[in-house]
Amino acid sequence: MSSDEQQIRALVAEWMAATRAGDVDAVLRLMSDDVAFLRAGRPPMGKDEFAVAARALAGPEAPRIEGRGEILELEVAGDWAYAWSRLSVVVAPADGSASIERAGDTLTVFRRQDGRWLLMRDANLLAPVERSE
Amino acid sequence: MSSDEQQIRALVAEWMAATRAGDVDAVLRLMSDDVAFLRAGRPPMGKDEFAVAARALAGPEAPRIEGRGEILELEVAGDWAYAWSRLSVVVAPADGSASIERAGDTLTVFRRQDGRWLLMRDANLLAPVERSE
Repeated sequence: MSSDEQQIRALVAEWMAATRAGDVDAVLRLMSDDVAFLRAGRPPMGKDEFAVAARALAGPEAPRIEGRGEILELEVAGDWAYAWSRLSVVVAPADGSASIERAGDTLTVFRRQDGRWLLMRDANLLAPVERSE
Repeated sequence: MSSDEQQIRALVAEWMAATRAGDVDAVLRLMSDDVAFLRAGRPPMGKDEFAVAARALAGPEAPRIEGRGEILELEVAGDWAYAWSRLSVVVAPADGSASIERAGDTLTVFRRQDGRWLLMRDANLLAPVERSE
């Protein structure tokens, strides 16, 4: 595995860990300033909007967020890379009400800026999972 | 604009034109054999499944399919490229019933194989548009 590939896999692992820990600043450091999160039925979300949404989820009444994922494919070309991943995110509200799972594929573009890999474009196809509990 | 960028833009234009003309074989020639179309709430679709679905839409009772789109961003790195596009697709049934519009963003990965650019990964975030007719 190339050093670039290792660095991008480390970025993804750090993203998951920081999200779980509610460390919004750490997540923001892993994306470019011009990041765009593409979503179905809504306009793309930029870094400022991501920060507001993430901080709203990180207070004392914060839900527990457990993300699991697998990188199915990762290609690096020069200062660009893309990854196809399959993710599952379970959000468990602090009040103990039923948790919600979303799962599906993501297609993500990374760019190397000043020697560091950053997440730059992300297409998120996660959809609610019907649970039979 | 680089020659690679011109070729990828020509591929996208040819894809739209062939779709409009119901020329499924022409569309299939523009994608790699291992293509994956990522979709929300459903598993990724491969080339065979795409062909079956497209041929089902291309018979004598075929709806009229009008796609419009704009490439917002296109980056080429070696034999890889990605594009962020914004699309609108209107499907007008042959029986004259109400047409359906879907619109949104796509994130697409292209690869050069044997000197030709092909579509290889596509994340489709199009969602139904509420129409007030």
